[in-house]
Amino acid sequence: MPGIKDRVAIAGVGATRFTEHYEKDQEDLLLEAVEEATADAGIERADIEAMWVGVYYRFTGLSGTTAADATRLYGIPSTRVENYCASGMDAFRNACFAVAAGVYDIVLACGVEKITDQGSRGLPNVLRDSIPPFMPPASAPALFAMAASRCFAERGWTREDLARVAVKNHANGARHPKAHFRREITMETAIEAPMIAWPLGRFDSCAVSDGAAAVIVTRPEIAKTLAHKDDYTVVKANGLAVTSSQPMYDPGFDYLGFPATRMAAAQAYAEAGITDPARQISFAEVHDCFTITELLNYEDLGFCEPGEGAAFCADGRASADGQLPVNPSGGLKSFGHPIGATGCRMIGELTRQLQGRADGVQVRDPELGLAHNLGGPGAVCSVTIVGRN
Amino acid sequence: MPGIKDRVAIAGVGATRFTEHYEKDQEDLLLEAVEEATADAGIERADIEAMWVGVYYRFTGLSGTTAADATRLYGIPSTRVENYCASGMDAFRNACFAVAAGVYDIVLACGVEKITDQGSRGLPNVLRDSIPPFMPPASAPALFAMAASRCFAERGWTREDLARVAVKNHANGARHPKAHFRREITMETAIEAPMIAWPLGRFDSCAVSDGAAAVIVTRPEIAKTLAHKDDYTVVKANGLAVTSSQPMYDPGFDYLGFPATRMAAAQAYAEAGITDPARQISFAEVHDCFTITELLNYEDLGFCEPGEGAAFCADGRASADGQLPVNPSGGLKSFGHPIGATGCRMIGELTRQLQGRADGVQVRDPELGLAHNLGGPGAVCSVTIVGRN
Repeated sequence: MPGIKDRVAIAGVGATRFTEHYEKDQEDLLLEAVEEATADAGIERADIEAMWVGVYYRFTGLSGTTAADATRLYGIPSTRVENYCASGMDAFRNACFAVAAGVYDIVLACGVEKITDQGSRGLPNVLRDSIPPFMPPASAPALFAMAASRCFAERGWTREDLARVAVKNHANGARHPKAHFRREITMETAIEAPMIAWPLGRFDSCAVSDGAAAVIVTRPEIAKTLAHKDDYTVVKANGLAVTSSQPMYDPGFDYLGFPATRMAAAQAYAEAGITDPARQISFAEVHDCFTITELLNYEDLGFCEPGEGAAFCADGRASADGQLPVNPSGGLKSFGHPIGATGCRMIGELTRQLQGRADGVQVRDPELGLAHNLGGPGAVCSVTIVGRN
Repeated sequence: MPGIKDRVAIAGVGATRFTEHYEKDQEDLLLEAVEEATADAGIERADIEAMWVGVYYRFTGLSGTTAADATRLYGIPSTRVENYCASGMDAFRNACFAVAAGVYDIVLACGVEKITDQGSRGLPNVLRDSIPPFMPPASAPALFAMAASRCFAERGWTREDLARVAVKNHANGARHPKAHFRREITMETAIEAPMIAWPLGRFDSCAVSDGAAAVIVTRPEIAKTLAHKDDYTVVKANGLAVTSSQPMYDPGFDYLGFPATRMAAAQAYAEAGITDPARQISFAEVHDCFTITELLNYEDLGFCEPGEGAAFCADGRASADGQLPVNPSGGLKSFGHPIGATGCRMIGELTRQLQGRADGVQVRDPELGLAHNLGGPGAVCSVTIVGRN
């Protein structure tokens, strides 16, 4: 497959702060992110010809039409994309395809989730909403805790190995003005925190946060005429993979990584022409919904060998000044995970890093950034690679 | 915009019967539709490289990954698209874009809804799920009844004018083996039926039904090598429009038609090069969620002049042997409206009509078929035009 390598450009990005937005509704958040993105691209709202919005929960009433209404984008197509935790990045993927097909010149990919403060609508019932009826109910912490305990048993990983991820990501997030949690933590804080689902404690888990993010997608020849004419970024690859719906219920599942990530990465690397990701990828924003997930992501994404995930973090290779900085933004650990927004936020982080204007920690001279979402649970993965033009 | 005219082909179609499927779950329905479509195209399941699934309700747990699981399509991207009543047709649209972009060769667009028999999950709460929190709650019959009563007052339309649509569509549906209601009705039956929301009675309203539909999407050069090498169909246009989220709450809304339909039709006609739809479109499957909607669709789609909708039906122009047969399948009146499935079912009806193998009433020598969905409520519309290769 030819893919969309170098055929799609990112002309501008925007995001709200990710936090508990008690004073704002999802419509406010989405509009704020979109207005930042259009200003960043130097375009008017009227220049947008179509939009895709990633949103997971539907209890808040947000769909394509209401998202278009909130952002005052009347009379254009607006499609809601839902794909578990990859919802935002899959919205971006579909926007890219429409541009690569030549159907539109300038489109909007965005995502939003307003999870806290839903009043009489109540907090979302993840069990009811995300687990199909033929599966036994289990919460996300419980599912990922099984992976962690398996790594403890099989590889001798410890709660210290998990805590190092939290400490690293909070150190990065402390420097990012849009992060939910903007403070460093110590190993002791992480290890002594209350347990959520053994061995995952409070600091091994990302938070429930609200937020929105937006990306202006176009073709390179048009990006050259907009605000970032010299430093727009281009999409190198956009891999999405779905495994059977619940690998954790598959008798053959070994709990030592996620097939969806390995498949999506293989697709993305083939499309981008990447043969040695540990050397060729400059930095990555990966799905650290739990600390154990980030450790396994290193392996699944080919940043290190299988079994080396804990060492990859412990010896500083994933640190902001390491060989392959992972989650220099602070990750889901620092931002929380407003589900539909996360993927588009990550695309924005990649673009700003590549342009040398990261909001928080700036990595050194990056050429290629990778963004990764995993969800479903464990069954869908999106890997997007963005590079300088 | 160049659009996707003649760049995307339909290689095969499939659908379940639409009815109350008490013995089948959504996974059974989706698999049945997909297997019919792959057999129709003469391909293996393994030939499918990516899929898009239209599903509106999420209380049943169906998303991209679970849809892939149900259809045994492991390891490929599967994206859920939700866009109110246009969900299925928007899934098809996004599948078309990915093929037109050259990213995939053969993909699947499908849709499903299992509305009846949800057991402890209960019937869907349309008010809760579809009306955003900032809008007053109102049911679909009540909203469309306002359009009908406005037409009664403004144009002198009557319950007989509405009933003619129901009689026509039931006469067509009576001949379709996959319709939910397979019997003709009389004007008396329609007019004397219990009232739902005045002036809309039971036979002015489509039913709650279950069903699934699937379409195999590819490029013409590949369709030429598959089962329908001689009679595959091609996509001429795919227009989607979104107006402000609730035109019925817009003080300027006149209740005499739907701006979303007019905008989507204008886009589609421009893309397909159609200047006189009443002459150039051979037949249409339109969104007759209520009889009044079909009458207004005639006008909004340019099949007749504004105000002539009732006459267009009364003088037989929309009949199976008329100038422009509308809903020769029997429409939502006969099939019900399993929301995510409807759009893909319509694409299937167009293809089979153009191939001279309609399941029910076959229209005479069609060249171009049009499919139309309206939802949102009233705020999103998709118009797809399909023609012979």
